[in-house]
Amino acid sequence: MNTNIDYIPMQLSKKVENIPEALSIYINQIVYERKRKGFDIITLSLGEAYFDIPMYDFKKLDTEKCYHYSESQGYLPLRKKLASFYKSQYDCNVDFENELLISAGSKPIIFMAMQAVLNEDDEGLIHEPAWLSYQEQLKLVGAKAKFIPYNCKAEDFYKYFTPKTRMLIINNPNNPAGWLYTKQDLEIIYSQCRSRGIYVLVDEAYSDFIAENENFYSMAKIVPDKDGVIIVNSLSKNMGMSGLRVGYVISSPGVIRQMLKLNQHLLTCASTIVLHYVTKYFDNIIKKTLPQVKDLNSKRAAVKKYLDKLNLKYLNGNNTFYYFVDIENFPSSSLDLSLYLLLKYNIATVPGDAYGASTERFIRISIGTESLDRIHDALLTIKNTISLNKFNKNELDFILCQQGVKRFEYIKGY
Amino acid sequence: MNTNIDYIPMQLSKKVENIPEALSIYINQIVYERKRKGFDIITLSLGEAYFDIPMYDFKKLDTEKCYHYSESQGYLPLRKKLASFYKSQYDCNVDFENELLISAGSKPIIFMAMQAVLNEDDEGLIHEPAWLSYQEQLKLVGAKAKFIPYNCKAEDFYKYFTPKTRMLIINNPNNPAGWLYTKQDLEIIYSQCRSRGIYVLVDEAYSDFIAENENFYSMAKIVPDKDGVIIVNSLSKNMGMSGLRVGYVISSPGVIRQMLKLNQHLLTCASTIVLHYVTKYFDNIIKKTLPQVKDLNSKRAAVKKYLDKLNLKYLNGNNTFYYFVDIENFPSSSLDLSLYLLLKYNIATVPGDAYGASTERFIRISIGTESLDRIHDALLTIKNTISLNKFNKNELDFILCQQGVKRFEYIKGY
Repeated sequence: MNTNIDYIPMQLSKKVENIPEALSIYINQIVYERKRKGFDIITLSLGEAYFDIPMYDFKKLDTEKCYHYSESQGYLPLRKKLASFYKSQYDCNVDFENELLISAGSKPIIFMAMQAVLNEDDEGLIHEPAWLSYQEQLKLVGAKAKFIPYNCKAEDFYKYFTPKTRMLIINNPNNPAGWLYTKQDLEIIYSQCRSRGIYVLVDEAYSDFIAENENFYSMAKIVPDKDGVIIVNSLSKNMGMSGLRVGYVISSPGVIRQMLKLNQHLLTCASTIVLHYVTKYFDNIIKKTLPQVKDLNSKRAAVKKYLDKLNLKYLNGNNTFYYFVDIENFPSSSLDLSLYLLLKYNIATVPGDAYGASTERFIRISIGTESLDRIHDALLTIKNTISLNKFNKNELDFILCQQGVKRFEYIKGY
Repeated sequence: MNTNIDYIPMQLSKKVENIPEALSIYINQIVYERKRKGFDIITLSLGEAYFDIPMYDFKKLDTEKCYHYSESQGYLPLRKKLASFYKSQYDCNVDFENELLISAGSKPIIFMAMQAVLNEDDEGLIHEPAWLSYQEQLKLVGAKAKFIPYNCKAEDFYKYFTPKTRMLIINNPNNPAGWLYTKQDLEIIYSQCRSRGIYVLVDEAYSDFIAENENFYSMAKIVPDKDGVIIVNSLSKNMGMSGLRVGYVISSPGVIRQMLKLNQHLLTCASTIVLHYVTKYFDNIIKKTLPQVKDLNSKRAAVKKYLDKLNLKYLNGNNTFYYFVDIENFPSSSLDLSLYLLLKYNIATVPGDAYGASTERFIRISIGTESLDRIHDALLTIKNTISLNKFNKNELDFILCQQGVKRFEYIKGY
């Protein structure tokens, strides 16, 4: 068929055209390309922990059931497992029949939660540093994203509320800072929000990555009836198997019912075979991963010592597998720093402005995938680079050009 | 913490509150409950085909890769497989680098396609009979859903266009009618739409369920450069493994780029382990399922004979595993008929108004999961019930009450 007629061009969604590519993905794509070309990259930019977990036997699962749709609210035996996990691990009562829903990762769960409770022009307030997709997801549901700077204390969050604020988003433990919100923080946040009809969405995706002497409080413990709170978690992230794409949400029955409708229309269910797999091997996997989480915590403590020795500053926190390192007086942007580290020294980090307007003077390093020795090497180079008195932008431009890497701005929003 | 204070109630999204539960899900939930109570239900209500497919060996997959994120555009080797499948099976050229994206099922793919190209208050036009979620997904992206009656011919579709129409949605082959859009239909539809800047979204989820003497034309063949067309397919549906949740989209590079950003923010990727599995065993699975599709086609032909013998009318089509049966003068609604058949005779069907305003006088029967004998038994009962001169509403109300089943209206939108 002849399609060469001079047609009007097809439109695209203005909303979606204005969504920038995620800065972390921009960086990691450069990393993949350079790895493909044979460069040995010290990868401190990935949001994953690499654990040693075997492949368990799929033949022991019910083949026929695995290949077909499963309940949209989430495979019942797994809901039971998750409810008892929240009980034994975090001392929370979760009603797996009315307060829990499972879907294909915590990303779509957070989006559906926003969609379920927000109306057009409502505002969502995000405490920085924060994962970039929160704000893009808010925009997609027609809400506005506003921010609380990283150094604001919980008791002062209310100062950022407007009459339109309908959701507050926190990440506990926080990626990338590694801090925890204390019991008192959570109580203050909840009472400030609930009295104004503001939902508190708590992303607890790193809830297993807690240092030994620290206490993680789930918001589900603070608010037993879940009224006004939405707790999101990632089964596969916590298991170090983020590629499996299984997330879940704990909230009040009213919110879960709305999210169930959304899940029916948008996703149906997470992959049934994966649901059966993680249910059958839940205990085996946990037994394998929790000790490795402990090892990762020790590694984090070792990295801390080295950061201190190098006199590198970072946001205070002992959890997750990230450090959010202060770049202080580095004489250019954090994006320039990240690109320079990556292209000149083969060290991959994520610039701080991927996590909010108040955190441009940071870079995120993830210690989940590299050996301690290589992390130490990288940190020394980072320290030396940050300490430069002068940064030669022309040198970076030349390297970018030479290696055929486009600047982020050029592809922003494509 | 004391949460007994007399707070204002939390708001919910008005948009989502107004989404009704899917009628098909309402029916199937009654089916599940009755099965649990030990009733033997002839299940003609499921949107799935049950094939005999073994579980292949997961241990042959790369364990470490399987547990981690994969490329947001979709695992490259699978994109290659799918592009060559569209070439060999449907004679279409698909550029797997720029025109193809894989995600967690065709449901989120369709939603992301609408989100990628529609703006607020644009209209999406759906040719009935049509899967219910199309209209709910349109509403979720802020667009309006409009409908073309089932008996409208392709050349007359344009009569339903308004200046706000920006997308036309067809399902080829059509669930539940079983018809195909011919090459001529598709050319007319495309030229009517393209000249007005209207996208044609073609859901080809049943593209393998084609009768022997019929010709399926993919829209990708009609429009080689994919300009203005969005072709959605479901790998797992066509493989009779709908629970795996793997769908994909073929479109122009500009649309794919927008959808990629959405996929990064909303889903990341389909379950990596499943992507590796279907890639490694793609040919094995196809070799197993395509002959079973043929069997299903023969079964459909046998059912057709019986429908004709009973003098039951149905929409004309030879494909998919559905029949859309005309309930003619049955003296009550198709929902009443479906409920009556289910609760009195243990026959599960889906009422026609689940598929559009113009199709209230139909019920959908799926022949994918039951034996021919049982389907025949059910059809005879359906024929006898449709032919009733009088329908006793009180009897149905009594049965509903007795068996504790809520009427659909009562839970609509919860």
